[in-house]
Amino acid sequence: MEPIVLNGHDLTLDDLDRIAYDGAPVEIAAEAMERVRKGRRTMEKLAHEGKAIYGFNRGVGWNKDQSVLENQIEQENRRVIYSHALGYGPYNSVEEVRAMMAIRLNNLLIGASCASDDLVEMYRLFLNRGITPRVPRRGSVGEADITTVTHIGMAFAGENDVTYQGTVMSAGEAMAREGIPPYRWQLKDAHTVMLSNSQGEGTAAVLVRETENLLAMSDLIYCLDYEGLNGNVEAMREDVNALRGLPGQQQCAARCRRYLEGSYLYAPDAHRALQDSLSFRGGFTITGTVTDALDVVKKFLAVQINSPSDNPCIIPETQELYVTSNFETTSLAVAVEMLAIALGHLSRTINYRMIKMADPNFTGLTRFLAPRNGESYGYSQMQDAFSALDAENRFLITPSSVDFFAIEGYIEDHASNLPLVVSKALKLVDNIRYLVGMEALYAAQAVDLRGPVKLGKYTQTAYDTIRREIPMLDHLRPIQDDVQKAYKIVRSGVLLKNIENL
Amino acid sequence: MEPIVLNGHDLTLDDLDRIAYDGAPVEIAAEAMERVRKGRRTMEKLAHEGKAIYGFNRGVGWNKDQSVLENQIEQENRRVIYSHALGYGPYNSVEEVRAMMAIRLNNLLIGASCASDDLVEMYRLFLNRGITPRVPRRGSVGEADITTVTHIGMAFAGENDVTYQGTVMSAGEAMAREGIPPYRWQLKDAHTVMLSNSQGEGTAAVLVRETENLLAMSDLIYCLDYEGLNGNVEAMREDVNALRGLPGQQQCAARCRRYLEGSYLYAPDAHRALQDSLSFRGGFTITGTVTDALDVVKKFLAVQINSPSDNPCIIPETQELYVTSNFETTSLAVAVEMLAIALGHLSRTINYRMIKMADPNFTGLTRFLAPRNGESYGYSQMQDAFSALDAENRFLITPSSVDFFAIEGYIEDHASNLPLVVSKALKLVDNIRYLVGMEALYAAQAVDLRGPVKLGKYTQTAYDTIRREIPMLDHLRPIQDDVQKAYKIVRSGVLLKNIENL
Amino acid sequence: MEPIVLNGHDLTLDDLDRIAYDGAPVEIAAEAMERVRKGRRTMEKLAHEGKAIYGFNRGVGWNKDQSVLENQIEQENRRVIYSHALGYGPYNSVEEVRAMMAIRLNNLLIGASCASDDLVEMYRLFLNRGITPRVPRRGSVGEADITTVTHIGMAFAGENDVTYQGTVMSAGEAMAREGIPPYRWQLKDAHTVMLSNSQGEGTAAVLVRETENLLAMSDLIYCLDYEGLNGNVEAMREDVNALRGLPGQQQCAARCRRYLEGSYLYAPDAHRALQDSLSFRGGFTITGTVTDALDVVKKFLAVQINSPSDNPCIIPETQELYVTSNFETTSLAVAVEMLAIALGHLSRTINYRMIKMADPNFTGLTRFLAPRNGESYGYSQMQDAFSALDAENRFLITPSSVDFFAIEGYIEDHASNLPLVVSKALKLVDNIRYLVGMEALYAAQAVDLRGPVKLGKYTQTAYDTIRREIPMLDHLRPIQDDVQKAYKIVRSGVLLKNIENL
Amino acid sequence: MEPIVLNGHDLTLDDLDRIAYDGAPVEIAAEAMERVRKGRRTMEKLAHEGKAIYGFNRGVGWNKDQSVLENQIEQENRRVIYSHALGYGPYNSVEEVRAMMAIRLNNLLIGASCASDDLVEMYRLFLNRGITPRVPRRGSVGEADITTVTHIGMAFAGENDVTYQGTVMSAGEAMAREGIPPYRWQLKDAHTVMLSNSQGEGTAAVLVRETENLLAMSDLIYCLDYEGLNGNVEAMREDVNALRGLPGQQQCAARCRRYLEGSYLYAPDAHRALQDSLSFRGGFTITGTVTDALDVVKKFLAVQINSPSDNPCIIPETQELYVTSNFETTSLAVAVEMLAIALGHLSRTINYRMIKMADPNFTGLTRFLAPRNGESYGYSQMQDAFSALDAENRFLITPSSVDFFAIEGYIEDHASNLPLVVSKALKLVDNIRYLVGMEALYAAQAVDLRGPVKLGKYTQTAYDTIRREIPMLDHLRPIQDDVQKAYKIVRSGVLLKNIENL
Repeated sequence: MEPIVLNGHDLTLDDLDRIAYDGAPVEIAAEAMERVRKGRRTMEKLAHEGKAIYGFNRGVGWNKDQSVLENQIEQENRRVIYSHALGYGPYNSVEEVRAMMAIRLNNLLIGASCASDDLVEMYRLFLNRGITPRVPRRGSVGEADITTVTHIGMAFAGENDVTYQGTVMSAGEAMAREGIPPYRWQLKDAHTVMLSNSQGEGTAAVLVRETENLLAMSDLIYCLDYEGLNGNVEAMREDVNALRGLPGQQQCAARCRRYLEGSYLYAPDAHRALQDSLSFRGGFTITGTVTDALDVVKKFLAVQINSPSDNPCIIPETQELYVTSNFETTSLAVAVEMLAIALGHLSRTINYRMIKMADPNFTGLTRFLAPRNGESYGYSQMQDAFSALDAENRFLITPSSVDFFAIEGYIEDHASNLPLVVSKALKLVDNIRYLVGMEALYAAQAVDLRGPVKLGKYTQTAYDTIRREIPMLDHLRPIQDDVQKAYKIVRSGVLLKNIENL
Repeated sequence: MEPIVLNGHDLTLDDLDRIAYDGAPVEIAAEAMERVRKGRRTMEKLAHEGKAIYGFNRGVGWNKDQSVLENQIEQENRRVIYSHALGYGPYNSVEEVRAMMAIRLNNLLIGASCASDDLVEMYRLFLNRGITPRVPRRGSVGEADITTVTHIGMAFAGENDVTYQGTVMSAGEAMAREGIPPYRWQLKDAHTVMLSNSQGEGTAAVLVRETENLLAMSDLIYCLDYEGLNGNVEAMREDVNALRGLPGQQQCAARCRRYLEGSYLYAPDAHRALQDSLSFRGGFTITGTVTDALDVVKKFLAVQINSPSDNPCIIPETQELYVTSNFETTSLAVAVEMLAIALGHLSRTINYRMIKMADPNFTGLTRFLAPRNGESYGYSQMQDAFSALDAENRFLITPSSVDFFAIEGYIEDHASNLPLVVSKALKLVDNIRYLVGMEALYAAQAVDLRGPVKLGKYTQTAYDTIRREIPMLDHLRPIQDDVQKAYKIVRSGVLLKNIENL
Repeated sequence: MEPIVLNGHDLTLDDLDRIAYDGAPVEIAAEAMERVRKGRRTMEKLAHEGKAIYGFNRGVGWNKDQSVLENQIEQENRRVIYSHALGYGPYNSVEEVRAMMAIRLNNLLIGASCASDDLVEMYRLFLNRGITPRVPRRGSVGEADITTVTHIGMAFAGENDVTYQGTVMSAGEAMAREGIPPYRWQLKDAHTVMLSNSQGEGTAAVLVRETENLLAMSDLIYCLDYEGLNGNVEAMREDVNALRGLPGQQQCAARCRRYLEGSYLYAPDAHRALQDSLSFRGGFTITGTVTDALDVVKKFLAVQINSPSDNPCIIPETQELYVTSNFETTSLAVAVEMLAIALGHLSRTINYRMIKMADPNFTGLTRFLAPRNGESYGYSQMQDAFSALDAENRFLITPSSVDFFAIEGYIEDHASNLPLVVSKALKLVDNIRYLVGMEALYAAQAVDLRGPVKLGKYTQTAYDTIRREIPMLDHLRPIQDDVQKAYKIVRSGVLLKNIENL
Repeated sequence: MEPIVLNGHDLTLDDLDRIAYDGAPVEIAAEAMERVRKGRRTMEKLAHEGKAIYGFNRGVGWNKDQSVLENQIEQENRRVIYSHALGYGPYNSVEEVRAMMAIRLNNLLIGASCASDDLVEMYRLFLNRGITPRVPRRGSVGEADITTVTHIGMAFAGENDVTYQGTVMSAGEAMAREGIPPYRWQLKDAHTVMLSNSQGEGTAAVLVRETENLLAMSDLIYCLDYEGLNGNVEAMREDVNALRGLPGQQQCAARCRRYLEGSYLYAPDAHRALQDSLSFRGGFTITGTVTDALDVVKKFLAVQINSPSDNPCIIPETQELYVTSNFETTSLAVAVEMLAIALGHLSRTINYRMIKMADPNFTGLTRFLAPRNGESYGYSQMQDAFSALDAENRFLITPSSVDFFAIEGYIEDHASNLPLVVSKALKLVDNIRYLVGMEALYAAQAVDLRGPVKLGKYTQTAYDTIRREIPMLDHLRPIQDDVQKAYKIVRSGVLLKNIENL
């Protein structure tokens, strides 16, 4: 695979996806490496001149007024790592941790962080050899992700566990297999490893990708469901939505029109309702809102993966060293919280569509879409199950970014809780996968009950994808199996893969 | 005052401010009026051809399948108004209702709504003659603001109350004084009045202005407070923040640097701490986050005030009539909820700064900034009071947009709750005015205790503005009076007026 | 009116109601006054012996290590009052403040608080002469209600405002009219006034009464609504509910059976559904849950109004003085939060019942209960209005008790936020009054549409009470007036008064 | 082990613990079995007489108006089971599922449920042979736990998985090993299995036990921490707390006094502060509030495990069959939500104590309790980690019981979400175990730094338990290991076991 060349300035979210999900290797631009060296020399010079540097010749946190002598540096680095690596399970996924390492590596290359050459090399090696430290998902307040990302430092030194070739093993063993000696700490490396928001940012990058996939699948199944309803798609027209001018709404309406190309819904039908319920008529406005919210997340995230969160930092142009607040990531955190609320709307909307699909007054079909042969109750009880999931989703949109204490000698009196905030949004995404899966069951069953109708170009493929795994519900079987299969279809992304080349 | 010419396309948030706050009159562009007429003729033609039009020759809501005969139109309009005007107090402010009327008038001018000429004229007259209907703040689910904005229609017909020349009186009486006869309903006017998100949008416009003012004042008082602390402003540097590249953070850092121009904080001082607590060091990153969130709100709001929320709507280019979902305002609603969360961070940050300012370990000043003569306890108990306010603020950031039922025959199965969402954010803004006022008391007291120091160009003016009303706390007096005066200084905007011409 | 004799030990919630709502005067038991004197002498003796007493010969809060000399006592009391009376509007109601004064007076009589005789007398005089201090509703963290209840102390000293004979006036003026001289501070009186949870407790007492009334009215209207539905009341049977054994459910089922005595619902009807929707079938289980939650609130409140929140306090039996945590009122606070959640269930349940009543599939009546003559849309749009109210109610159940800072030199690192918590519950109660009022409109309309049916003994009276003010909706009129009238019927309590003597 | 004899009437929470945790077998009282038979005969008789019985000769849910013929009964039972068993992972623990089965078995014995003899026997066999069905934790709205508890029915029929002798295997295989044939459905057995709140109740029973253990350990470690602080325990006195009279506060104060028996804190010390911060001074009031809330949970739970949630149900005395709402479990659900809020207070309080313990101004010890030899940073960074956990805890107290849809043909328009509500509380308990563990680290370290002091009778044992696993932090080591060990000490319950026989 073609390596991604990192230089600290133009890493894209797509690049990150390739590194995180596809295992793309990374290389480091030569001029970037030069900036790293220049920055390091600056910091050494300043330290020799007696300037107090937090995390280098001064302690961190409440110990910021304590001096560190030069010959204590390696020991002090170890002390910092040992006292800062903390957290609680479960662990981040391999994809998440790869995104974290790529982001931190990239922003070290700006030359603002005072990383040693060897430290930069460690990130590159771990990424390219597929050694992925085990990082606890919980334990950081997001200011920066000190406690959790320090586990990456532990792994560099050969301690704790990593995932390597699909197996969890000790870092030391994986490194030995790859011929990489345990890292020996230099300069302020420990501090450099830990002063990064990369856990929040890396998981946010994963969230962006997974939400985008979810939205595409949700729109696809919504369109199939609309065909199951025989609904009125007038409100989806290009001119109608251009008149309002909201960006996400227009994008999702356009996608849905594409998905429905050729559908019988575009042929006139005297039996069709004048206006459907809002969950159907405006389904694309809801994914539109999620898209709008996602754009805000992407905007801040794209800035942050190409900029340093270090404190202090070196200004590359002037080679001066300053105290910063650049580890503050609150705009990103509140944007993710907005995204979570938007996902809450999507959850409710899918639920209301399913409730409608079970109601003969709306569909003209059977109650609960039960087969006409009386062999099954249809998808009635799924209503309890998806309603229970929505209750959890309503809970997951509660904001958390503002909940923190004044800690570390009352000095850390602000936090963003970005990792927690992202984790909750990821859980929402996974729960909504179930909902999309269940809507797929409703949609395909309604299409079957409605009898032969011409589906859209893409929705036909979606229907086929579902029916390949899950036959029509016209004989007695455990519904739970259908739900689990439908979830797996959504989880695996096969729905999108199958429409890719249409 | 120069009138604002409305044409449905380029109304700005600044224009809206002038109409709402300064009472600027409005005029209607001639070509816009032509569009209105063209649209109306289209709808009449379609109705005559027998097309079913929701709210015109068909009922609304669950009655959408009921026909309305031509000779029943006036009566049907009244029936719609009488059965839709609902809500609970308190009432929107005059500024809010003026913004609401201006927005609805403006987007009628797009020609998509089928308003009669006379209805358009009613909005213009009410705005220009200063007749402001009383609109209940509560009662709309924001999909559109049917229940509440219909009170504007009630007032047009001379019913219910309005505010006129500072007095609440019956609509009929105010109209009589201005020689305006009660409105007689035509076409689908009742429906046109009510199918508007203008309550949510109008109050959001007020929220935007009041948040912007609050942020400027909060930054100003934060800078004065920083002078009270004798803190380290290095993290506020332009280059440091450019390195991170987050937009709001950069804007607010720039504003703070301007406010502090000439301050003694830029002179070296051996006693200054290397790094202050995050609430001080990164104060501008928090207003930066609020600014970032506000930009998202402004982006969607600017689109919506120049686009129609009508359903059905006419496409002006083709003069065709379509069903829409253009009353969906969820992106704006979730953006306001993000803004509220950002304001929650501001609330907490101001609180933590005040807690620090009371602590001699951080300030080197007296406990609770008590006067050295022992005459007063200083501002100790204000800590209970601002802590109580923050508890309320924490509560106010809870999202509400997702909480709705499937109503109106299960057809309205989505809502945005925009009016509620905005009301909560406005309450947050007002609560934070108290906090900024209290921080001003702490800041000025600390400056006084610190002895003669050179303040910044703008912070000196802020200090003077405060001290003009509230002397140093060095004698026994009820603290409550100080808090109320400080709140009024912030509420009145005098802090900003006084620095305007520096 | 017969005075309530207070002795510190057996004040009931009913007594409190009589003092707060009916203006009953209070007297002080002689033996209680003796305890007060004994306690005071103890504290004086200990202070003379040199024992450090917080708030007496030592400062309060972070000043707890500062000594207060004997000749500074009056000045120090004033200093405490002036620096502790804080808060934000709106103000507590007269009923709430009377409850607050009665509670504090009562628990002073235990003899644990070191009140002076004169201070005790001030509470008695203010209660009996109808002088009610203006106390800001917001500003206390509930640990104790220091900031806000100190306004009572301000009024004792003739400062700030009171309500007197229905008018707001200065405390000084009201006292002059009653011949009461401004209070001169003694001992640790200022501290004694302020170290009380009586704002939280007094408003909680008002909450208890108003919730009890609301529940009785809600059950009554629910029963009338059930008659409107022609529902199946089998699940309300005594034996059925005894089998489950939950206390609130049994009580409310019993009350509903009484309300429905003689109703046609007890006569067989072949058209009646086998089982109604849960909101009807189990309506009494929801008021039952509110009743169960209310019982927990009453349990803690009954303890607290007869026990001292003072710190330090005197043990009456041994006359020793100890530091306490008796101002911690968290059990009461979380109980009120549970009550709020229970009220949230009631809100949703009433909404779902109204949604059902508008649906001909459930009622067999007209859509939205519109009159058969086509004169009105019926109560359709009320659905938007009550749905909007429920969104606010969902928001109001968010807990707040855990949101606090470490303040006052980091010493006050816990809070209960009881006053905020109670205020939110009171707002819920008021919002639900609207819902009960709207359900009354639905219920009476449904009964009318159903034609002559025999109502229950109590529901007939409820029907008559409503119809006396609001005729059947069979002609065109603004629905808003119906809603406001219905709310006032509930607010005034006339529904309960009219069934009192049945 | 002595079997627990079940009769439907006097199952205690302690009995449940023995069945769930200790694997105690159950037996069925003879007279109870007689009631079961009598009830069943009644229902058969009524069905033969043509009475419509929900779930027997009528369908369930929206199918309640569909008849079921006698010869279809087995098939209909299978249809019900297959269409109702739903849910999402993770799975309930073995202890939880045993509690669920014991509760359902017990309340079948009341004779109100129409269970067949064979069905009753299946519960008994599964409990006594240690076959535990796999029940998904998520998927029920708690009205009853239809979707999830139906998995127990699946297992009875030999389908899906169970845990047997520590291994997950197919139900069929486990049953074959025990010689139990797959269950053949009779009567309305499927309905009887599923119409039970036993998932909510069973997990609530586990919650009760685990919270009680947590509270005892938290009080113990709090006392040890208080010794680390050299604090003032005056507020813990019996007379002081009796004066206030709040039950939980008195119980926890008593427990703490016992834990501290013999401690040096009871000896006078001139250096001791007059009053400690509230988190120390009133620590027992917070566990007191949790105890108070737990008592409410226990009250409702004790009723429910001995009463039937069936609908319809038979009245044993009269052998009549009625529709019920006895599956409504809202009082229990809101009580658990109150418990969660109370646990939120405990979380915050432990955090504030740890913040104090790191502050030399409060302790007179080193910063962050770092060893005096400079070998370690002490427990500084744990502050980020526990603060992150509290942010999650603040999130977990958000109520969920009110969040539901009107489902199943709009008939199920109320829910309690009890299983979700309990799951969140259980997560809170587990998170607080980490906090108690970390407080134990702080406490033991502070005691060590303070030098030789006489600990209390119980706290000395707690200290020894900790130090056996985790030595004093006076040499360089990864702090994370300490935290994990401390968590395991709390999780295992060894702290309580070691003090049991003192």
